[in-house]
Amino acid sequence: MNTIESIPASMRVSELLGTDSLTVTDRPVPSPRADEVLVRVTSVGVCGSDTHYFTHGRIGPFVVEQPLVLGHEASGVIVAVGSDVDAERIGSRVSIEPQRPCRVCEQCKKGAYNLCPQMQFFATPPIDGAFAEYVTIQSDFAHDVPDSVSAHAAALMEPLAVGVWACQKAQVTIGTRVLVAGAGPIGVITAQVARAMGASEVIVTDVSEERLAFAAKHGATRTLVGGEPIDEVSVDAFIDASGAAPAVRAGIPAVAPGGRVVLVGLGADELTLPVNLLQNRELWLTGVFRYANTWPTAIELVASGRVNLDLLVTHTFGLDEVEGALMAGRLPGALKAVVEPWR
Amino acid sequence: MNTIESIPASMRVSELLGTDSLTVTDRPVPSPRADEVLVRVTSVGVCGSDTHYFTHGRIGPFVVEQPLVLGHEASGVIVAVGSDVDAERIGSRVSIEPQRPCRVCEQCKKGAYNLCPQMQFFATPPIDGAFAEYVTIQSDFAHDVPDSVSAHAAALMEPLAVGVWACQKAQVTIGTRVLVAGAGPIGVITAQVARAMGASEVIVTDVSEERLAFAAKHGATRTLVGGEPIDEVSVDAFIDASGAAPAVRAGIPAVAPGGRVVLVGLGADELTLPVNLLQNRELWLTGVFRYANTWPTAIELVASGRVNLDLLVTHTFGLDEVEGALMAGRLPGALKAVVEPWR
Amino acid sequence: MNTIESIPASMRVSELLGTDSLTVTDRPVPSPRADEVLVRVTSVGVCGSDTHYFTHGRIGPFVVEQPLVLGHEASGVIVAVGSDVDAERIGSRVSIEPQRPCRVCEQCKKGAYNLCPQMQFFATPPIDGAFAEYVTIQSDFAHDVPDSVSAHAAALMEPLAVGVWACQKAQVTIGTRVLVAGAGPIGVITAQVARAMGASEVIVTDVSEERLAFAAKHGATRTLVGGEPIDEVSVDAFIDASGAAPAVRAGIPAVAPGGRVVLVGLGADELTLPVNLLQNRELWLTGVFRYANTWPTAIELVASGRVNLDLLVTHTFGLDEVEGALMAGRLPGALKAVVEPWR
Amino acid sequence: MNTIESIPASMRVSELLGTDSLTVTDRPVPSPRADEVLVRVTSVGVCGSDTHYFTHGRIGPFVVEQPLVLGHEASGVIVAVGSDVDAERIGSRVSIEPQRPCRVCEQCKKGAYNLCPQMQFFATPPIDGAFAEYVTIQSDFAHDVPDSVSAHAAALMEPLAVGVWACQKAQVTIGTRVLVAGAGPIGVITAQVARAMGASEVIVTDVSEERLAFAAKHGATRTLVGGEPIDEVSVDAFIDASGAAPAVRAGIPAVAPGGRVVLVGLGADELTLPVNLLQNRELWLTGVFRYANTWPTAIELVASGRVNLDLLVTHTFGLDEVEGALMAGRLPGALKAVVEPWR
Repeated sequence: MNTIESIPASMRVSELLGTDSLTVTDRPVPSPRADEVLVRVTSVGVCGSDTHYFTHGRIGPFVVEQPLVLGHEASGVIVAVGSDVDAERIGSRVSIEPQRPCRVCEQCKKGAYNLCPQMQFFATPPIDGAFAEYVTIQSDFAHDVPDSVSAHAAALMEPLAVGVWACQKAQVTIGTRVLVAGAGPIGVITAQVARAMGASEVIVTDVSEERLAFAAKHGATRTLVGGEPIDEVSVDAFIDASGAAPAVRAGIPAVAPGGRVVLVGLGADELTLPVNLLQNRELWLTGVFRYANTWPTAIELVASGRVNLDLLVTHTFGLDEVEGALMAGRLPGALKAVVEPWR
Repeated sequence: MNTIESIPASMRVSELLGTDSLTVTDRPVPSPRADEVLVRVTSVGVCGSDTHYFTHGRIGPFVVEQPLVLGHEASGVIVAVGSDVDAERIGSRVSIEPQRPCRVCEQCKKGAYNLCPQMQFFATPPIDGAFAEYVTIQSDFAHDVPDSVSAHAAALMEPLAVGVWACQKAQVTIGTRVLVAGAGPIGVITAQVARAMGASEVIVTDVSEERLAFAAKHGATRTLVGGEPIDEVSVDAFIDASGAAPAVRAGIPAVAPGGRVVLVGLGADELTLPVNLLQNRELWLTGVFRYANTWPTAIELVASGRVNLDLLVTHTFGLDEVEGALMAGRLPGALKAVVEPWR
Repeated sequence: MNTIESIPASMRVSELLGTDSLTVTDRPVPSPRADEVLVRVTSVGVCGSDTHYFTHGRIGPFVVEQPLVLGHEASGVIVAVGSDVDAERIGSRVSIEPQRPCRVCEQCKKGAYNLCPQMQFFATPPIDGAFAEYVTIQSDFAHDVPDSVSAHAAALMEPLAVGVWACQKAQVTIGTRVLVAGAGPIGVITAQVARAMGASEVIVTDVSEERLAFAAKHGATRTLVGGEPIDEVSVDAFIDASGAAPAVRAGIPAVAPGGRVVLVGLGADELTLPVNLLQNRELWLTGVFRYANTWPTAIELVASGRVNLDLLVTHTFGLDEVEGALMAGRLPGALKAVVEPWR
Repeated sequence: MNTIESIPASMRVSELLGTDSLTVTDRPVPSPRADEVLVRVTSVGVCGSDTHYFTHGRIGPFVVEQPLVLGHEASGVIVAVGSDVDAERIGSRVSIEPQRPCRVCEQCKKGAYNLCPQMQFFATPPIDGAFAEYVTIQSDFAHDVPDSVSAHAAALMEPLAVGVWACQKAQVTIGTRVLVAGAGPIGVITAQVARAMGASEVIVTDVSEERLAFAAKHGATRTLVGGEPIDEVSVDAFIDASGAAPAVRAGIPAVAPGGRVVLVGLGADELTLPVNLLQNRELWLTGVFRYANTWPTAIELVASGRVNLDLLVTHTFGLDEVEGALMAGRLPGALKAVVEPWR
């Protein structure tokens, strides 16, 4: 293991012990394996899934059965590298792509590594996440960011990667008319990505007028309060970033023949869908499961100023304040909370 | 109008007057427009939609409000041509592609003419179909068939076109594992097409063991009685040719990550679907609405012997027996009924 | 034929009689067929192919054997419509897509109507173009433009359509690195389109520093004088808009494995290419032949301000000055000449 | 390292010392790394590239500068596994995919691992190949074959993988008309694959009538002696398996608008191509560089009987006879030579 910075033997981490139960404890600083780097964490965004583990102790089949470190939207600085990694990487500011695919299965080898059945993903039981002072990650999944990208923005590359992946699946390009349901962080990011890809219209819907006002400033070309009829809207792609069944059901009829429906938001396991429209219009419906090969593009979008992630951050917290961070969604005006483990 | 054969002034057609009400009546033989041909009809397959119009008087928004000629799976002989059509076409044996797209809208011009909002489709109110002695069609939609293709097979190019379109959307190629739900005519045809495209496995399910036995001889590499668990099955593409909600819901979990679900069978307008699977596995789900640009391929598949349509025909009827043809599905061993309007 | 404006019986047109021989003469104003509109022409851009017909009397197999009206980049106002066209179109400002595909062949029906073997294209012998006071065109190929789009810009939708088509074939999207050879009108337009599609880098090369300076202001993120080595450049897509063999040969080695090479510029019939690179890197090489289904996107790009066509127009001419327009390329600072037939 | 079979300490290998210089020598049997398996080699096909290294000492930039073991079309039996590999694999009959991509670069992660810049490929200096009693390979690149597949066929999965990859790039499916230039092993294999994918026509050209007669029995629907005009031929895809410039130049004009040209055969570094045809017809031209993700499909094609590899093997040799194997192409009736290192 190469390093230049003095690295302590132990570090502080925030552990989820079970529903509504968090603690800060000491753990040994992990050693990077041969192909890994050790990252001193600077910023970690809070995702709805983190909050859901805190409040419910599980997401579907993934159950918190042992202390779990949450947080999977992370940035930091490489402070040590494994034996196979170029020591020149030490000191690099990086955005972490928080997954470890097996790299040898059929899905990995054909480029769909996000669908790897052996995937180890941050903050998904029993794999720990990044609400910690240090984490390790395989070197190629610690992506260099230029100095112009802030630590917060480097952390939020993760939700941006989701937006990129969704827009790619929705085949957004010049002239595409896009409907985005949900004006939370993912919705606003997706709207910005769609514009960067050349979308001619980006209509964002939400139940919150406050959120819509924000979206209207950052990506949306038009906003519609959720309850409004969207009968007259006709789009080529509908991306649901709400996870709300009514939003999904309201959006599909707005999609023109041959269009795409991409479900990003997680909601109920089952949904009653208008299959007659999917059939008669030959719509394509799919979902996104994380992302693959999106980081370089995401970083470029931010570095070039076409997507702005910093403006999403409304609240920051220290490692002792993770509960506050996880529940920040209830605060007025909250959009995105970030944990700074070094505080 | 060029012609060589003596063409009568009037012809016999079978008219649907309303639910359960058919009659045979005389109408003038139509004159082909400049870009059309006049076809003396030899064979017309009966489709489930024909039967549905007979028994219900409507399909969704399409209501039988005036006498309607049913039948859209038709073959015949060109007996006259319009002024812009090469007179050499007279005498050609043809398979009719039973649609008239506008050719100038966005969908038509980008190759998706089946999604043309101005489409005039045979046997869809108020457009008449082919249970008649003569029909007209635009010249390019009267596709020549070689002598080796029977009149019945030429008529059944239409359901074959559906199977081709479905397999294309399902991206079937060498090595693809395919699940087909429903062993009726469309299911059996789809299984044969999948094999012709190189599918390594074609698993067909149905509730009827008799139908499965037939499918096992003609396309399926394996059959499963509908009620059986299909937990252990893993496929790349699932094509529903049943329209039955339980079949659709049972098939989706069998699709591997990145796979395709193509809904061909028409059933309920809405369906409760496992969207968590669509999302977590990034499945693509779509439907087929008729077909576009499939006839040349369909004809080649039959002419080369890779798909056999004749073996599907279990019953034939004359124009006075259309009611029998429409209800032939209830006869033992029935798979496909064909009407011969000249009888 | 519907109309509101008083339409004269005859009009002035510019005829190419043979190499270096132009005249202005009177012809009857054409009548629109049932599916056509009559357009009073306002602006017509001059293309290199127009100049080539003037100076050489032919392009490949297309020989000027009878008086030919040049000009295929045209805009105008609909002043009359054929019997099948909505009379409400009269008065519309339109950009003309200068082609008449047959709409019934295999290529047309699958969406590749630009490859129609029966194509009738403006200003390609023996089909007349738009250096005339009036032209007819099928209604769906007279595309409405909003008031914010100038008459010149509406004419230059044609070269923009080429740039859109080229970038689509080059699969430009967010993060794509693009090399464009040639900083003439097509090169500059292509660079702007690439940026609008999200390209991260658009490197433009040319032998003229003056042209490069212009490109650097309008689309290019970097420029390289033609003679410079481009060894260190690595791109995902290379679009040649020069037609110069050395530029094509210099550009291909800059394309990374899996990249695309799109030849837009017309040059020699044969070219010696580094096929070992095409093979070892699995590059895809193709050319563009006009365009299909690009006008709506092109109009949106201009209307939204993402592509600026007006700044390309450096010289304008009347119908009596067509020779000057055709030879304007030799004028200092010339980029695009436009003919205004009404002057 | 797990094993069941007694494994000797040393093994015999055939070394290429330089141009025209081969020797058989002893080397230690390699130990599989953690993720590797040790394979006792049963059959190794001879490829034209092996012969080229023997006769020229180099291929392009790859120079034989130290003793090199040739042979990259190999099958065998797993006799030992590394620490991370399931010991149950021991005893498996396998076909070797003879490449070691880095698995972490951009190309690898997007599924194009054949384009990995860090690739280590068998029998490409300085990486040794399989003319040896034992070789190691990463476990996932030792593909199980069913008992119905012979040892020779398991070795020839490698050229079959090339044919599969070529046909995939050529987008062969039902109804595709294919032209294959060259009736050597790759040409015949490609013809068989094209048929398995549903090609309606597979026209094979060669200068040898004997080879064409063989091709006509195994995949070709039509054959043409090389010198014959192919003016009247129209295909959707042209796959060159000859590497001969005249064949490439003769084939391109046969490709219909929108068609694909795939260069498999290796020939001169540069080729003079009819770019006007590539442009006017919007053809796509590319090459294949090995393959990715093709083995499972290749094995299935052979196991199902749709491709027959055994009939290609005309001569076999022992390890002491490698020179004979490399020069077997000169023997009458020779198509494919196989080395059996255990002899």
